[in-house]
Amino acid sequence: MNDFPIENLPYGAFSRDGSVHLGVAFDERIFDLHAASRSGAFHDVCEPGVLEAENLNPLLAQGPHVWAAVRARVRSMLGAPVDAELFVERAAASMRMPVAVADYVDFYSSEQHARNLGKIFRPGSEPLLPNWKWMPIGYHGRSGTIVVSGTPIRRPSGQRKAPDAERPDFGPSTMLDIELELGFVTGDDAIFGLVLVNDWSARDIQAWEYQPLGPFLGKSFATTISPWVVPLDALAAFRVRPAPQDPVPPSYLQIEDDFALDVALDVRLQSEEMRVAGMAPAVISQTNARNVYWTMRQQLAHVRSNGTRIRAGDLFASGTISGSEPTSYGSLIELTWRGTKPIRLPNGESRAFLEDGDEVTLTGRCDRNGVRLGFGCCSGRIEP
Amino acid sequence: MNDFPIENLPYGAFSRDGSVHLGVAFDERIFDLHAASRSGAFHDVCEPGVLEAENLNPLLAQGPHVWAAVRARVRSMLGAPVDAELFVERAAASMRMPVAVADYVDFYSSEQHARNLGKIFRPGSEPLLPNWKWMPIGYHGRSGTIVVSGTPIRRPSGQRKAPDAERPDFGPSTMLDIELELGFVTGDDAIFGLVLVNDWSARDIQAWEYQPLGPFLGKSFATTISPWVVPLDALAAFRVRPAPQDPVPPSYLQIEDDFALDVALDVRLQSEEMRVAGMAPAVISQTNARNVYWTMRQQLAHVRSNGTRIRAGDLFASGTISGSEPTSYGSLIELTWRGTKPIRLPNGESRAFLEDGDEVTLTGRCDRNGVRLGFGCCSGRIEP
Repeated sequence: MNDFPIENLPYGAFSRDGSVHLGVAFDERIFDLHAASRSGAFHDVCEPGVLEAENLNPLLAQGPHVWAAVRARVRSMLGAPVDAELFVERAAASMRMPVAVADYVDFYSSEQHARNLGKIFRPGSEPLLPNWKWMPIGYHGRSGTIVVSGTPIRRPSGQRKAPDAERPDFGPSTMLDIELELGFVTGDDAIFGLVLVNDWSARDIQAWEYQPLGPFLGKSFATTISPWVVPLDALAAFRVRPAPQDPVPPSYLQIEDDFALDVALDVRLQSEEMRVAGMAPAVISQTNARNVYWTMRQQLAHVRSNGTRIRAGDLFASGTISGSEPTSYGSLIELTWRGTKPIRLPNGESRAFLEDGDEVTLTGRCDRNGVRLGFGCCSGRIEP
Repeated sequence: MNDFPIENLPYGAFSRDGSVHLGVAFDERIFDLHAASRSGAFHDVCEPGVLEAENLNPLLAQGPHVWAAVRARVRSMLGAPVDAELFVERAAASMRMPVAVADYVDFYSSEQHARNLGKIFRPGSEPLLPNWKWMPIGYHGRSGTIVVSGTPIRRPSGQRKAPDAERPDFGPSTMLDIELELGFVTGDDAIFGLVLVNDWSARDIQAWEYQPLGPFLGKSFATTISPWVVPLDALAAFRVRPAPQDPVPPSYLQIEDDFALDVALDVRLQSEEMRVAGMAPAVISQTNARNVYWTMRQQLAHVRSNGTRIRAGDLFASGTISGSEPTSYGSLIELTWRGTKPIRLPNGESRAFLEDGDEVTLTGRCDRNGVRLGFGCCSGRIEP
């Protein structure tokens, strides 16, 4: 399947001629927005600095009217013959961070995930805390360690303490995990577009440190995002009715015409041994973004409810997206139930958590009402 | 006392002629670094873009050698007659954010504060959680809502739930609080300088939302910093031996020649009624930064221990600094024991938490070995 038909046209940043250009993915190529802007193609739509920047932040700051105008112009240009100089091959391109992330918020909006982690981290007590169904629970993550797909992930070290140990020890994490998420970037108060997010997590570090102030070094070492920001406009055909909410949330979270998105999500894992043997990555989880309890608009309304200003370039991630079936859980700690039920890979290896050399790839695609598009890949390989 | 003698020379940003200039506070004036740089005074020390920027970030990125060279040059210039055009009156200046804050980490490093909050938020259980003495507990805050002293603080709304209520309600916080903190800004891996930090906190919102992922909207609406960044170099005379730590922390937190800082800290409150009556602000707390259990270098070593890259412009705050006496607690929730022991103001008003119109001012000063200097003010006034 082609992730990037004319209906998609996601934005990214790539290296060209020693500098970073903005571009739009279209089939197997990248339309060079920087070069097109220099040729005057957007002179009546926005200032040259917007599309000739090294990331999307200046475009994000323009707001929805300019976003729509740029998208319409790109779409009409790509519907007609275009100078070949304005394209590069996507397969050969080196992608960069599409956005200079301002603040990064990570939510916890999948009910199944929250229940699973409650059971695992707080066995014997009610898995869902009393506040969970009243508001989208979230926390701030570290924006300075968000990296683009393909960046190697170094296994973090940290403190961890076995329940029966007298004191913690310090060393490389032995419970390195993924989190399958979907995130959105904003221009001030509006949602611009979406990316896949892998919120790498060291469960042993997290378990020891997280009370009472939440996850910190168990998450801060790295977060990977996919290089292509899929415009919210491109996803109109995939809006579905959000799951009913019981109890009815407070009025500031009751949003008219709210929507969930029907995005099928996969997690693939390829071990070092599989790669050497030329074996394809194995699918270890399949789920769907419509499983998320709190919608993107509710998340944004919640963050703004205390008067907080949203900036161009803020990133909001859904939290791990887990479905109701064990094969649809979005993290290894859930898939292997804290390592007690290891996953079997096709070459006979088993996995409780990630080993050095493992490469994890998230993908997302939409297929509905005759329209098909995808999110590209969000990959990272573990280094010792 | 003069906060800004020649031994201090803190950096800030201020408005001049319609743009933002960097400057150095010296006695009652500001030495205009931007103007001095344009006149060529630093041509052999750093590129013109560094001191002619609108914030300290380019200087922070230069690292300690350039910091020392700039400081030495400023000091030698101010020891001789200087063109009056290079000064503005400090009292008339409009101060701006000295730093574009990249990531903001807030620690929880005062033992007395952690014990007090444990008793208040988790009555009946051990106040200090098992991890507290093994590592500096912290979390990421919102960098986009950090504001400079003098910026009005709007009372946040949010969800809160009384213990006996069946469901939460939404409305303006009735438990708006301060947190007296000292923070440091970094250039990559080194500490550049320090500011006062008021981490405004809505305790009712915080209490309902904070489990399991930590503080979020109860803190994210605003954090105020003082406008003058006091260079770590200026504080050499105020280094003191850190408090002994028991248990001995892991080796990555054992830092040779580590230090605490002897900085006397005050919190002052002036109500609307006091202001109208011309009454001076009342001191409501007095403490000292040497009371902090985890040092700045330990905090930085901890954040870096999982491989996290520190950026120029990152801000790390100590967490509320509380001493052992009830009059030395650094927040109202501790000073009034969650409102059960209201503070009496000199005009007869009482305070459990902040009322609209209240102005809170933090100050810090050092006086040791014949050297005296201060941090200026960190103020904010509550708006409805």
